[in-house]
Amino acid sequence: MFTIWTNAKFPEAVRAELIEGVKPHRLIFSAQLAVSNLVKAEADPSLQEADIALGQPDPELALQCPKLRWIHLTTAGYTRYDGAAFRQSFGERGSVLTNSSLVYDEPCAEHVMAFIFAQARQLPQSLDTQRTSRAWPTHERRAATRLLLGQHVVLLGFGAIGQRLAEMLSPFRVKVTAVRRRPAGNENVTVITEDQLAEALATADHVVNILPDNPATVGFVNADRLNAMKPGAVFYNVGRGTTVDEEALLAALHSGRLGAAYLDVTDPEPLPPEHPLWSAPNCYITPHAAGGHHDEWHRLAAHFLTNLRRFEKGEALLDRVI
Amino acid sequence: MFTIWTNAKFPEAVRAELIEGVKPHRLIFSAQLAVSNLVKAEADPSLQEADIALGQPDPELALQCPKLRWIHLTTAGYTRYDGAAFRQSFGERGSVLTNSSLVYDEPCAEHVMAFIFAQARQLPQSLDTQRTSRAWPTHERRAATRLLLGQHVVLLGFGAIGQRLAEMLSPFRVKVTAVRRRPAGNENVTVITEDQLAEALATADHVVNILPDNPATVGFVNADRLNAMKPGAVFYNVGRGTTVDEEALLAALHSGRLGAAYLDVTDPEPLPPEHPLWSAPNCYITPHAAGGHHDEWHRLAAHFLTNLRRFEKGEALLDRVI
Repeated sequence: MFTIWTNAKFPEAVRAELIEGVKPHRLIFSAQLAVSNLVKAEADPSLQEADIALGQPDPELALQCPKLRWIHLTTAGYTRYDGAAFRQSFGERGSVLTNSSLVYDEPCAEHVMAFIFAQARQLPQSLDTQRTSRAWPTHERRAATRLLLGQHVVLLGFGAIGQRLAEMLSPFRVKVTAVRRRPAGNENVTVITEDQLAEALATADHVVNILPDNPATVGFVNADRLNAMKPGAVFYNVGRGTTVDEEALLAALHSGRLGAAYLDVTDPEPLPPEHPLWSAPNCYITPHAAGGHHDEWHRLAAHFLTNLRRFEKGEALLDRVI
Repeated sequence: MFTIWTNAKFPEAVRAELIEGVKPHRLIFSAQLAVSNLVKAEADPSLQEADIALGQPDPELALQCPKLRWIHLTTAGYTRYDGAAFRQSFGERGSVLTNSSLVYDEPCAEHVMAFIFAQARQLPQSLDTQRTSRAWPTHERRAATRLLLGQHVVLLGFGAIGQRLAEMLSPFRVKVTAVRRRPAGNENVTVITEDQLAEALATADHVVNILPDNPATVGFVNADRLNAMKPGAVFYNVGRGTTVDEEALLAALHSGRLGAAYLDVTDPEPLPPEHPLWSAPNCYITPHAAGGHHDEWHRLAAHFLTNLRRFEKGEALLDRVI
């Protein structure tokens, strides 16, 4: 029997599913529940008792808990656990870190689809017309719409979200190119490395940023890369705000070099009301909602329980990071 | 050599493509070019000379032109040519009517995808926030989003647009049910007839109306059918405005019975600024733009030329209606 510690703030109904689902193991709830998956939780000494941690345990404390064999994060992001020191210590002792990518790939990829099609079909323009003049600019709107057919989509990052997005785009006869640090060789799209990116950007109609936040990605989408994009290209960000040079992005929007930008993440978040991105031309913003879905907590719990059954049997865990 | 008459108002560049493409045939332009594909053009006596008519010829006049063997419409809709009298006279003399469904299925299906994903990811709500408070309601927005995974999509009509839409939905693991007057038996989705519709509506998350305008479809989406829909279902219309009882639609939106409505077509069009649909709760309107795309005229000309090559060889024409 394992002791499973969690600091994830599951809603009541899902908490009950979890208590039932983990049996015969023992489930303990941290007194300091994480307020949000995006905010660092406080260290909780009860973690010492745990074989398994579910949620967002404090990384320093986790290294001082020798019993702890497995951490399952309730996020896809794992920046706080991604330092060389943590990777080494945790790896050396044979402990495992998994995340919840398989919960978030579907909603994030659907969010990108929503962005791409809103732009293709000029939905923000029509909503603005509805909220203001209530005119009926059929000809203008039709002339500004674009078929995906034959367009080129460049994905910055090709993890779970990028791979799912490529599947979703498959009926549209677009060309998909994905940038990946370490190509696996079995991808079903054209995979390039960073040094080939400028060339791909030159013919890109859509550039989708799915990069996580880490030292290698900060400011990745900079002025040079924005200027390398085909004039009129549309930029999307469902990765992290820190991966974009927002001054350069603003300049590209104001000059008309970029056709539009659709951002689900910014730096900082919340984006303050006075931030110039809110009113930049053709810039559309959603409040870090790409991973959300109404049954998110239920799917997070179900994903953990699937992995728990595998852990019991000594099978390979899904979404393993370390 | 055929004489090809057209009253379609092709832009200059596409007109040149067409003149080149029809060779060695003779192309004559009507003095009364159709102002719009949606407005009835005036009768033009020069149609008498034509073997082939491209555009929107006057249907009564067409019946009085014995030379005329083929009409190719520059629309998907063909209401004006769909009367029993026209079908009979035109059919009996062995003349053929084709339309441009294959030009419009792609943009119309993409427009529905844009609508479905805007709703799933709550994009209109985020744009309204951006245009007003510039707040950052992450939790509220995430809780209101829905994955398509496992949802039920009901299509009213299963012609070229519906079939293409079903293909586009295939990566999303949704259940698709299509209502069709005459099931063909080879559809790759569940096909039902009108008498089974109420049952399908009861479990529908999305109801997509793609019905054309004809005596059998006027007011098809009436109060009974709206009340048969699962509470919270979302209704989409890219067919024709006349197929919906707009009073009943307004009632379903105001009562909250419908989760939302996305309309590209209304009755009348343009929808006057004072019309209550503009401000009905969760009702989003685009100005009859679903079939549009920036290279629409080019694709219309290319589709006609493909059919012309088939006509020359006596092969079956694409998009044949009569």
